[in-house]
Amino acid sequence: MTDTAHAPLVGIVMGSRSDWETMQHAAARLEALGVPHEVRVVSAHRTPDVLFDYAAGAAGRGLRAIIAGAGGAAHLPGMLAAKTAVPVLGVPVQSKALNGMDSLLSIVQMPAGIPVATFAIGNAGASNAALFAAAMLAAGHPAIGEALDAFRTRQTEEVAGNDDPRK
Amino acid sequence: MTDTAHAPLVGIVMGSRSDWETMQHAAARLEALGVPHEVRVVSAHRTPDVLFDYAAGAAGRGLRAIIAGAGGAAHLPGMLAAKTAVPVLGVPVQSKALNGMDSLLSIVQMPAGIPVATFAIGNAGASNAALFAAAMLAAGHPAIGEALDAFRTRQTEEVAGNDDPRK
Amino acid sequence: MTDTAHAPLVGIVMGSRSDWETMQHAAARLEALGVPHEVRVVSAHRTPDVLFDYAAGAAGRGLRAIIAGAGGAAHLPGMLAAKTAVPVLGVPVQSKALNGMDSLLSIVQMPAGIPVATFAIGNAGASNAALFAAAMLAAGHPAIGEALDAFRTRQTEEVAGNDDPRK
Amino acid sequence: MTDTAHAPLVGIVMGSRSDWETMQHAAARLEALGVPHEVRVVSAHRTPDVLFDYAAGAAGRGLRAIIAGAGGAAHLPGMLAAKTAVPVLGVPVQSKALNGMDSLLSIVQMPAGIPVATFAIGNAGASNAALFAAAMLAAGHPAIGEALDAFRTRQTEEVAGNDDPRK
Amino acid sequence: MTDTAHAPLVGIVMGSRSDWETMQHAAARLEALGVPHEVRVVSAHRTPDVLFDYAAGAAGRGLRAIIAGAGGAAHLPGMLAAKTAVPVLGVPVQSKALNGMDSLLSIVQMPAGIPVATFAIGNAGASNAALFAAAMLAAGHPAIGEALDAFRTRQTEEVAGNDDPRK
Amino acid sequence: MTDTAHAPLVGIVMGSRSDWETMQHAAARLEALGVPHEVRVVSAHRTPDVLFDYAAGAAGRGLRAIIAGAGGAAHLPGMLAAKTAVPVLGVPVQSKALNGMDSLLSIVQMPAGIPVATFAIGNAGASNAALFAAAMLAAGHPAIGEALDAFRTRQTEEVAGNDDPRK
Amino acid sequence: MTDTAHAPLVGIVMGSRSDWETMQHAAARLEALGVPHEVRVVSAHRTPDVLFDYAAGAAGRGLRAIIAGAGGAAHLPGMLAAKTAVPVLGVPVQSKALNGMDSLLSIVQMPAGIPVATFAIGNAGASNAALFAAAMLAAGHPAIGEALDAFRTRQTEEVAGNDDPRK
Amino acid sequence: MTDTAHAPLVGIVMGSRSDWETMQHAAARLEALGVPHEVRVVSAHRTPDVLFDYAAGAAGRGLRAIIAGAGGAAHLPGMLAAKTAVPVLGVPVQSKALNGMDSLLSIVQMPAGIPVATFAIGNAGASNAALFAAAMLAAGHPAIGEALDAFRTRQTEEVAGNDDPRK
Repeated sequence: MTDTAHAPLVGIVMGSRSDWETMQHAAARLEALGVPHEVRVVSAHRTPDVLFDYAAGAAGRGLRAIIAGAGGAAHLPGMLAAKTAVPVLGVPVQSKALNGMDSLLSIVQMPAGIPVATFAIGNAGASNAALFAAAMLAAGHPAIGEALDAFRTRQTEEVAGNDDPRK
Repeated sequence: MTDTAHAPLVGIVMGSRSDWETMQHAAARLEALGVPHEVRVVSAHRTPDVLFDYAAGAAGRGLRAIIAGAGGAAHLPGMLAAKTAVPVLGVPVQSKALNGMDSLLSIVQMPAGIPVATFAIGNAGASNAALFAAAMLAAGHPAIGEALDAFRTRQTEEVAGNDDPRK
Repeated sequence: MTDTAHAPLVGIVMGSRSDWETMQHAAARLEALGVPHEVRVVSAHRTPDVLFDYAAGAAGRGLRAIIAGAGGAAHLPGMLAAKTAVPVLGVPVQSKALNGMDSLLSIVQMPAGIPVATFAIGNAGASNAALFAAAMLAAGHPAIGEALDAFRTRQTEEVAGNDDPRK
Repeated sequence: MTDTAHAPLVGIVMGSRSDWETMQHAAARLEALGVPHEVRVVSAHRTPDVLFDYAAGAAGRGLRAIIAGAGGAAHLPGMLAAKTAVPVLGVPVQSKALNGMDSLLSIVQMPAGIPVATFAIGNAGASNAALFAAAMLAAGHPAIGEALDAFRTRQTEEVAGNDDPRK
Repeated sequence: MTDTAHAPLVGIVMGSRSDWETMQHAAARLEALGVPHEVRVVSAHRTPDVLFDYAAGAAGRGLRAIIAGAGGAAHLPGMLAAKTAVPVLGVPVQSKALNGMDSLLSIVQMPAGIPVATFAIGNAGASNAALFAAAMLAAGHPAIGEALDAFRTRQTEEVAGNDDPRK
Repeated sequence: MTDTAHAPLVGIVMGSRSDWETMQHAAARLEALGVPHEVRVVSAHRTPDVLFDYAAGAAGRGLRAIIAGAGGAAHLPGMLAAKTAVPVLGVPVQSKALNGMDSLLSIVQMPAGIPVATFAIGNAGASNAALFAAAMLAAGHPAIGEALDAFRTRQTEEVAGNDDPRK
Repeated sequence: MTDTAHAPLVGIVMGSRSDWETMQHAAARLEALGVPHEVRVVSAHRTPDVLFDYAAGAAGRGLRAIIAGAGGAAHLPGMLAAKTAVPVLGVPVQSKALNGMDSLLSIVQMPAGIPVATFAIGNAGASNAALFAAAMLAAGHPAIGEALDAFRTRQTEEVAGNDDPRK
Repeated sequence: MTDTAHAPLVGIVMGSRSDWETMQHAAARLEALGVPHEVRVVSAHRTPDVLFDYAAGAAGRGLRAIIAGAGGAAHLPGMLAAKTAVPVLGVPVQSKALNGMDSLLSIVQMPAGIPVATFAIGNAGASNAALFAAAMLAAGHPAIGEALDAFRTRQTEEVAGNDDPRK
């Protein structure tokens, strides 16, 4: 369970360039926690072969988690999960007409047998997928665990030490 | 644009054996209209490679349409459409918890670039996908066109000739 | 199955002038693929007789598909389908209050017997209806098939060759 | 504003024989109030010409209101309203997958210009459409107004005189 | 069934001043059709006694229909209907959080026994309620019937004579 | 703040006898906690005057809370609140077509100015409204407070002492 | 049941500083009614121990009601209610993607045994929670009851005395 | 990263005994994969202190994941996640009135900072949470990884080798 600091442990993929506005929150959070990661646009519908190759090679390249964001009929997370045993974390991107309810149901309602861990619609979901990936890695990577603990402590202190909303 | 009566023109695929209860209505309708077809269970999530192979070979095997039924996070129709230029007709199967609203949104809300023609949730959708496939084939297959016309005439007559609901 | 380049193969109709903002995406896509088409405003509710005449004459005028866009209680696609055997492709226009959920359900939930192929709410649906119509025509019109293949290849290359969302 | 007791003042139409289970509640209520009426199955999708003829002839035949029930992509009430100035009352029939939410939105969300008066999903809506039709007729038909008043008084008394739910 | 031109035949009421933005479309339509009407703010929740008085006096004052608009937990139409035999037409005003879905369900889902004729959410519903009220009055008021016919003819001509959305 | 044990402190009202199946859970809970209460069917739509009288007399008769259950377009809780300063607790009864979503929105989405405290759809909501009423009364009625504390302690112990779901 | 004017009787808590925009309407209403209150940010998820301490100490510090606002997966009201017998009033804050429907369901759908009195999504809910808290306190605090009566009277007069929406 | 076969690595908790019908599918799957686990009923609302203790002790007792199932206003997963850095996997249990849509939104819509990995409503979600937990453990526990691979291979073979739904 050794890893080179520079080899990515987490892959962030998204179905379209426009999803970056949401998914950058996952990247920023991983960056802040010191989790090596990579970022790619992989479209389930427009580049299905790239999707399959990405998923098939994920374990071999050392990825320990894939964070996949997509909107509308969001098939990217589920199809990645179909092709790899690496845990897939799905982020429903807020869609124009249906506000991400379509994205959410397309990702979370997976049939028994192929799981996708799903997070909230939009930026909060992207952030939380990154935090969850870090928590998964913490057991084997103490530095990540420490960074995560520090983040949570700081987060608690910020709320607790500043609890008058009128200021 | 000739075809052998026995080579299937339409493929009916579904994500799970339990979808047959719904999808048999597509098969029955094609049968009645004399449209050569085949039936397969192909799971986007449990047999993704079979799905890719099926889609990649569809045009070469002479398929002119694929009717795909799936429920929940229904990725089968969209992923078939991603891998073939053969028109894909999606049937949302009624799901247990959300009554097929998840199936519908997962199928119909495809992003620009890869279309899936979507029909109603459940049996009506399966029937109608078959009728639509037959209508697509009618131009090149006069017998199918005639069968379709006969079906529609008969359907109209049945309502028109029996319009007192109390009898 | 011959056709004059100038005789329209696809009719694009919409329930209101305001739907053009959405439906122009269907027209633009057909234009780019070299599919002869026509564009009309036909209101199911305000001009029902025009709707019936349009549908009744569609096959005779050589139309091979009708793309119909409407919002709210969207009856245009279904009523066209009731009056012609020409395949009807429905596009739910995003409505003001309910974001197109009403449009979608009014179009997709057709009863068994009269199919309407339904696409996504809004611009993506309009684009995809055009792509689907082209795919239907490809068998009998090789040039359309080639244009469609080129479109799909280009679309795939654009994503694959530009997959870093941060650039 | 005289009328023959036997010439129907209200037409009850429905899209399918299976809608009778719901629409019989409209018929029973009209019967009880002494409102002459007729009952017909008229399918917007399977018998569109019958629908147009029915609507076009409604005023001439003396109909003062049309109660139209339909489920799913329910186009019957709106298309009747498009073809006649006779007031149309729509009853959303409870559908299998979506519990009548599709029926309701397909009927109530009419665009400006062509109104359909919509009532509750299912039996209550059928009953209430009949009561509303009777209220519309009451001004010109005193006997109907009296029957309606009697119904409302009795209804109030039944609740008021029996207000302990444990008995 | 005589009436003074100046005595209102239709009452337009709304739950809050802010509903006027929507309900003015009902008033404008009645004005254009020459239907005498009155306009009032009557809040079911803040002025329940005024609501009861208004409803109780409606028939006596010669009102033949009440158009009631309200948003959110919209009780105004239903409570008016509970207190008068004058037909009540409900207009769901688009609400801030739920886009009028709450308003719609609060108005349309009346129990059997007390009907409210419901129209679309927002401006279209307000317009259509006015058209429907005019249609109800047409039988006894030929001038209103003629104005309504003229409106519908003009509306049809506007669409039919201007059916190219690109111009 | 004394009270006679037999004078009701809480009124349980419901829109229809059929709501008793749900509302009996409120009565049973009040009974168990020793809270004097009364039970009535009061229909907002069929007996509006009774509703107004009930609300207007509530404070004078010593009621300290009213628990009101209703389904569909549920106007009972809001209209009671409009007519009395006694706190009103609303219970959305599960409706047939829409599973109580209509009931919930009709009750909870009250406009600013007239509050209704809303609880969960169905039996749980009825139970909880009773517990909440008891909690409101606890300050002035120590015995009720003690009964409530005992209930909560017992409830906690039951879960804590029996936490293996396989037994 | 004495109280010092300055000791808070109502606690207003919210899950995040951004909820203040909504919850200030509760504070303003309590202020106007002369109800002593306090305001705190307490996050169920980021400061769970503070939440438990706050709830555990509420009764001892003299709080008679807690108004808790939160958005999305809104757990604050329910968890406060789990830890104190002081009545908890929940305000669903309007969320970005789902407009507060998630907040509403997370708050109102409490299981039997632990009630949360829920109010409308957003500002109206915050205002109404404050009014409800005041109504609860009125029995033991006559000045609050009088302020509440004055508020309601003024509110009624404002609507009744200004009922022409065109002015 | 050694572990005793008998010390649980995964905790399955649920809000109520009735959730066992759903959550047993998680237990069965973990059992089949040889993942040591424990099962507990822990109610967020009725036993909040037990919930806090459970979460606070989870890491120390060697738990590497917690699978938490709950229905309605489902606060259990989110509150566990608030109190422990051990990854929490949420399973929305299908609720009576709203079919689990309330459970899903209450679990998945967590704010940024505290993630809960969410799975499908009902049995499929319970199964998949177990599979996901196993995948998380696979890196450090080769036997679990092998069992998981075998499960997935078998699952694929079952579909692929039995793909005619008519048999």
